[in-house]
Amino acid sequence: LLINGKSENFIDAADRGLQYGDGLFETLAVVGGRPCLWHLHMQRLSRGCERLKIPFPGSDQLLHEVLQELGSTERAVVKIILTRGCGGRGYRPPAVINPNRMVFSFPWPGYPQDAQRDGVKVGVCSTRLGLNPGLAGLKTLNRLEQVLAQSEWKEGSVAEGLMLDTNDHVIEGTMSNLFLLRGGILITPDLSHCGTAGVMRELIIDTVRRRKLELKVGTVGLDDLREADGLFLSNSLIGIWPVRELAGRTFDPRAIDPPLVNEVLERGFQH
Amino acid sequence: LLINGKSENFIDAADRGLQYGDGLFETLAVVGGRPCLWHLHMQRLSRGCERLKIPFPGSDQLLHEVLQELGSTERAVVKIILTRGCGGRGYRPPAVINPNRMVFSFPWPGYPQDAQRDGVKVGVCSTRLGLNPGLAGLKTLNRLEQVLAQSEWKEGSVAEGLMLDTNDHVIEGTMSNLFLLRGGILITPDLSHCGTAGVMRELIIDTVRRRKLELKVGTVGLDDLREADGLFLSNSLIGIWPVRELAGRTFDPRAIDPPLVNEVLERGFQH
Repeated sequence: LLINGKSENFIDAADRGLQYGDGLFETLAVVGGRPCLWHLHMQRLSRGCERLKIPFPGSDQLLHEVLQELGSTERAVVKIILTRGCGGRGYRPPAVINPNRMVFSFPWPGYPQDAQRDGVKVGVCSTRLGLNPGLAGLKTLNRLEQVLAQSEWKEGSVAEGLMLDTNDHVIEGTMSNLFLLRGGILITPDLSHCGTAGVMRELIIDTVRRRKLELKVGTVGLDDLREADGLFLSNSLIGIWPVRELAGRTFDPRAIDPPLVNEVLERGFQH
Repeated sequence: LLINGKSENFIDAADRGLQYGDGLFETLAVVGGRPCLWHLHMQRLSRGCERLKIPFPGSDQLLHEVLQELGSTERAVVKIILTRGCGGRGYRPPAVINPNRMVFSFPWPGYPQDAQRDGVKVGVCSTRLGLNPGLAGLKTLNRLEQVLAQSEWKEGSVAEGLMLDTNDHVIEGTMSNLFLLRGGILITPDLSHCGTAGVMRELIIDTVRRRKLELKVGTVGLDDLREADGLFLSNSLIGIWPVRELAGRTFDPRAIDPPLVNEVLERGFQH
């Protein structure tokens, strides 16, 4: 673990990341020793910095530290945390902000090998996402909703849980974004009121548009899921997981255009 | 600063308090070397632990550590942070939870001397509180909404900002609870969908009932504030601040029953 470029395991307990969740993070796949989708991750992080008014340390410095932390590791997960640093009186940010950068690396997680081909079983969480347009789309350190949601099921019984917002709209999974296919059109929930705009989601949207397929970003209800021809989940580490089963209904994991899936996975994990 | 009873300034960067805001905190006034309203703070903390399924370390151990941290300090602010500790795969809490306890002490803040007598000027924030019944009332480490809200005004221009939820209900201040007086009845916003149930708010409610005054916990809109005979804010450190001015309207800071205020302040800061 690197903190501000130095090998450390501990951070100042006065850091606002701990005190208030006042910061952002990114989780990246590492393939062939290089972080995947680096530019998309950096775009989101810098967008988050702009919104929270935290100075963005710059993509070059972060890449340097990621490669330093990785050393000769070929396959891994990297997590970057950027906080507003210490200081300020109560919630109010200090006048001068000295952000803290942390770069963690983890072994590549043991996701089920067959999930990408055969699809996964998915549940619906009762924990809701609160609406907050000011934070929507960002990957902030305020993650208690996701912690509570993942606590709702026993590890292994389902692979992911879908979350609704307080208006009964389906938004995303606890750690993934959601797409549905209906009548040849791909639909993904609108994230302007809550949710995390995943970089894999962004890559999928871009790839769909390059292939001149139809895609709609809009409101999704549980009924829309039941009536879908196919569902899939995405994130930076899993790539794409088709949904095999949701709340008693089964779906064809091969409903999603295979050339599209292949192109996304190729672009998403290239090095 | 004490971490798990030991004098330290740094915590493990893998702590879930930093990673996800997975924890709770309490901020207490210290008068005569003793933390005020200890039992109410411990009740809220243990209620939060129950809700988040974090083992509560027990009031005795925490009091011991608070007194250890204070030493011979008579007047101070103490902040207790309790996190779920390290571990777990992603958002999912680990099977065995080893919470981390932190006890900070700070000098007593320099609140304006005349605020309690003359009242304060208050604004309305545009940052909203997202609804989350599962976390409502708790003092969790997910505080970005409050950070954004306090960033909306320059320090000193107003003393506090009121926050509405996404349904346009007035809930609380960024760091305080709200009461209004209308036709001899005290009203305070319902916190079952969002907001922090302050211990000073609880003490006020209890004192009002002991004095057989009428109190309603319910829905409050901006119109209700405009039509109020008096408004006041409360928290563990400020006690009670009457509102002198809100959005161009002025209020009588003496509208609130002085014997009630005196009894609350006596009970709230006794040692």
